[in-house]
Parts: sequence; C-alpha cells; structure tokens
Amino acid sequence: MIIFQNLLPSFERILQSELRSIQRTEPLQLYEPVAYTLQGGGKRIRPVLLLHAASLFTHQLEQFYPAAFAIELFHNFTLLHDDMMDHAGIRRGLPTVHIKYSENSAILSGDAMSIMAFRYLSKCNCIDLATIFDLFSTTALEVCEGQQYDMEFEQRDSVLIPEYLEMIRLKTAVLLACSLKIGALLASSPKRDCELLYDFGINIGIAFQLQDDWLDVYGDENTFGKKIGGDICENKKTFLYLKALELSTDKKRSILQSWIDLKEFDANQKINAVRDIYTESGAEKATRALMTKYHNQAIEALDQLSIPKSDKLELQNFAQTVVDRVK
Amino acid sequence: MIIFQNLLPSFERILQSELRSIQRTEPLQLYEPVAYTLQGGGKRIRPVLLLHAASLFTHQLEQFYPAAFAIELFHNFTLLHDDMMDHAGIRRGLPTVHIKYSENSAILSGDAMSIMAFRYLSKCNCIDLATIFDLFSTTALEVCEGQQYDMEFEQRDSVLIPEYLEMIRLKTAVLLACSLKIGALLASSPKRDCELLYDFGINIGIAFQLQDDWLDVYGDENTFGKKIGGDICENKKTFLYLKALELSTDKKRSILQSWIDLKEFDANQKINAVRDIYTESGAEKATRALMTKYHNQAIEALDQLSIPKSDKLELQNFAQTVVDRVK
Repeated sequence: MIIFQNLLPSFERILQSELRSIQRTEPLQLYEPVAYTLQGGGKRIRPVLLLHAASLFTHQLEQFYPAAFAIELFHNFTLLHDDMMDHAGIRRGLPTVHIKYSENSAILSGDAMSIMAFRYLSKCNCIDLATIFDLFSTTALEVCEGQQYDMEFEQRDSVLIPEYLEMIRLKTAVLLACSLKIGALLASSPKRDCELLYDFGINIGIAFQLQDDWLDVYGDENTFGKKIGGDICENKKTFLYLKALELSTDKKRSILQSWIDLKEFDANQKINAVRDIYTESGAEKATRALMTKYHNQAIEALDQLSIPKSDKLELQNFAQTVVDRVK
Repeated sequence: MIIFQNLLPSFERILQSELRSIQRTEPLQLYEPVAYTLQGGGKRIRPVLLLHAASLFTHQLEQFYPAAFAIELFHNFTLLHDDMMDHAGIRRGLPTVHIKYSENSAILSGDAMSIMAFRYLSKCNCIDLATIFDLFSTTALEVCEGQQYDMEFEQRDSVLIPEYLEMIRLKTAVLLACSLKIGALLASSPKRDCELLYDFGINIGIAFQLQDDWLDVYGDENTFGKKIGGDICENKKTFLYLKALELSTDKKRSILQSWIDLKEFDANQKINAVRDIYTESGAEKATRALMTKYHNQAIEALDQLSIPKSDKLELQNFAQTVVDRVK
C-alpha cells in the first residue's frame, strides 16, 4: 500500500538522517535497538497521515516533521513491547529486539522510544501545545488499554462483538485518528475539521483492522507477505470468529469449538475447515459488510471537511486502499 | 527522613484520592498495578521538592499538584521496570509487580505509568509548557540512560570513578533536580533561580546516592530498613568499591578481588572483610569527603537564590538530612 507518494520519501529521508544521529548517541546499547526497530521498515502510514492532514491547511510542512517522527517512534515502541509480551520472534522479517538483543534491552530501549516520542512532540512549534500533548498522551494510554484488552481476550472464554470492536478502536484506530488530528491542529485548521479528520481516522482504522483480520484468512500469502491462517491457528478471537459463532448452526458451532479445543492439529486442515465455516456461516460476508459500513462513515466525515473537494481525493483514495488492500 | 512537613500530608491526600479513581478505571488489570505501585509508600521526595520549589515563589500551590503527581508517577514507573530488569522480588516490603501480577503486567502497566506522567504534566496551567515538557522528557531519557549504564557496569570488568558519578547523576540526581526546576518554572520564578535550584538538585542528588552506597555498608539494619551489605554481596561497583580499588595496597586489592571472584561465601564474612578494606584503605573517608563536597556545592547554589534567607532554611535542612540520614 503506497500512499501520499510525495510525502513518504521526504519523511523517510528525514527519518533515516535522524536515525543515524540516534544510532551514534551514548549509551549505544540503549539507542542502537531504537534505530534497529525504526530502520526495519513499515509503511509509515501514521506520520504520513499527520503530514498530509497538515498539508490540507498549510504548505509549510518542515516544522511538522518532529511530530510525524514522534508518532512513528511511538507506534514502533508499541510494536517492540507488544512483541515481547506476545513472545513474537520475528517482525518485518527480522528478529525482534528481545531476541536480537535481550529482554532488558527490549524493556529499556522501548521505554526510551516512548519518552523520545514525547520529546520530539515538545519540539513542535505550536501555540496550543497543551492540546497536542493532552491528545497524544490520552491516545497513547488508550493504545495501552487496547493491548491490555487484547491480552485479556486471549484468556477469556467469550468476548462480545462490541468488546472486540472497542479493543481494535483502542489498539489500532485511535493512533491513526490522533495522527490526522495532530496534523490538523498543528496547521491551525478549524476545530470542526480537526474533529472530522479524527472521525475519519477512527472509522478507517477500524476498517483497516477488520481488513487485516480478513486478509489473515482470505489473503494471498504471496501478496500479504505473511503466513495465512495465523489467527486461526492461535485461536484469536477476531471479528470473523466471533461472528461465525453467532451465525453458525449448533452443529457448525460445535465443529468450530472442537477445532479450537484441539491441542494438536494439521495447520492447513484446521485453516481450511475454519475458513469454510467462516464462509458458510456468512461471517465473511458480515465482515466485509461491516468494513464497508466503517469505510462509508469515514467518507461521510471526509465529505463534511471544509476544504475543496479536490483536496479530499488523496484521503478518499487512501480509504479505498485500506478496504481494497491485499497486503 | 521527613521533609517539608506541611506539604507531604496534603500531597499524600491528593495522591491517595487520585489513586482511588485510577484503581477503578477500566481495564482494571492495567490500572490496578499502577495504584498498587504508588500505594506502596515511598518518601515522596520528588513531588514534595517540586511543590516546595514552587512555594518559594507563589502561595497558589493547588494548580501544581498534577505536575507533582506526574513526577511521582514517573519515578515509580522507573522503579517498576528496573525491578523487573534486575529480577528484584521485593520493593518497600511488598512483592514487585512482575511477581505479584505478571511480567506482561509489569511491562504494560509500567508503560501506562510513564505515559500517565506526561498526561498529568499536560494538565499544568503554564504559559511555557514547551519548556516544561522539554525538560521533563530530556530528564526522563537521562534516567533511562542512567539505568542502561548501571546495567552495563555490572557486566564490565572495570569502571572509572567519573563514569560512576555520571551514572548516578543520570539515574538519581537529574530527576530530583528536574522536580525542583519544574516547581520553579511553574511558579514563574526568575530564570537564574530555576537554574540554581536545578544545580542544588544535581549536587544533593549525587550526595544522596553516595550516602545510599555508604548506608549499604555502614548503616544500621534496624534504622536503614533493609539488609546491610547487599551491594557487597552483589559485587556492585559503588564509589566505595571503586575508591577502595584505587587506594588499596596491592595486597589488599588482591584480597578484595578474591572476595569478588568467590562464587560461594558466607555473607557476613564477606561483608565484614570488604567493609574492613573500605575503611582501612580510606575509601570510606573519601566517600564522606566527596559527599561533603557535593553537599557544599548544593549549599552554594542555595546561597545564590534571589529569595529571603529564611525561605532557604527548609532546603538547607533537607540537604543536611540527606548527608546525615540513617535510612
């Protein structure tokens, strides 16, 4: 998914130059894992959304790069600590920090990244820094809450669909929404536009996560870039799973449950069987319908923005890419 | 060590009321360990120093309590993550968070505490929030650097005395100094006074850590509240140890080294033997002399403050308590 082609290369250039200086900062053992994590790639969606939102209201973007960098730092901090909590060994094809360095490195360098995010944010030239800081810290805390719910849901027997949607709102959507709103706030956009961009971000963020769940089951391994069926093998309580439980016949539900309970299984067999239940029960259709609903809500928010229609095109395309994406 | 008797109870009251609301916040499993950590006690030195510094320039202190709470949150966050990294099982007589709850709880609730500190700080009613945020985030990062050096020194064969002093400046002194300076900044004190209070904090912070090292060897178990000789048993490279290596005769140095190398030993025997070397080599005297030097430098900074002499008395007493303290 390549978005906002003009902003991505310039952000990447500034990020890489920043990382070269971070990498040389003492103590090296603290800062090297920070640079390693950020150099590992990623789509840079959040910082680019921040810069794009600002560009809708001003052409002076240079001053907003520290904030864009702050958002990317924070996002990567959450991945780093989440990977340690989830015992994940690989991220973007590379060993995770707690594996490559040590668990203590992962804890402490992650802590440093979170703090650095706030430090970069404080470099922003903005008259209303209190609002920016309040929004960013509230969002950061919500992301922690999302991760907490995600971990709890794995231990729980049952999860309600509204609970699941709230979890992905917190874990995924709020940071996308916050990126857009900070961009708009920094560019001193009208208050209502800030809120509309936030709404757009929430809705597109939830659609993004639903598409992620969908791709994990129905994606093409070659284009998706990671193994298909991971969520099924790990018995993740995704929307597809929760909806299938709701829509299935008693018989199908007990088959689904027996796959969940099975300690040893052939992965492909389980993935195929569960995928069939998702499809036959209508859970797949319901997932795509819900995604469309959130996508439409995002577009409605976009429509109300007080900017020329032509300026909305890129966010409109972005929203389309989110639901159409194959990786 | 009881300081600033009028500020401590009012801070404690506000903190406890804040904790009651934190404890009831969902998800409970995220916020309960936060309240547990902060309820565990502690001397509340940093928030009280912040409030006291502000009180030197204004009588309207209510508005500064969120900042004081932010500092206490951040300090306790560092203890929580440090305890996990150091595999410490007990803190203030209670099980540490990674033992009582889980390692994932310790990581995530710690992360939340660090973010909450920034959130409380953003509630401060201050015209120059950028300066406050820049100072606090810089300090927070320095504390991480200090912890990194501390962990590295345990693995290294040799550590230079200036390296050790820099480590304790980062790990201990900067947060004390930052507390005082934020208090002064919030109260719109003259710029030079902010810097002098920061200097006072750095010097008294280093003296505080040297006294801590000293108490670990020469303290009285009943009044110090923790086991004497912990640093000796763990071969911690404290100032006492580094100075003893420097001042000892070759013979004594090799005896000290052989105690370090010994994998199995009687704790009391090792503590007594190493303590004797510290005393005989003059390392104990050198520690007290260095502490006095930092204490004097702190008092010099205090002398230059542009406030009435009588208003300096409490910080003067505090400085005296730091070097005289037995717990």
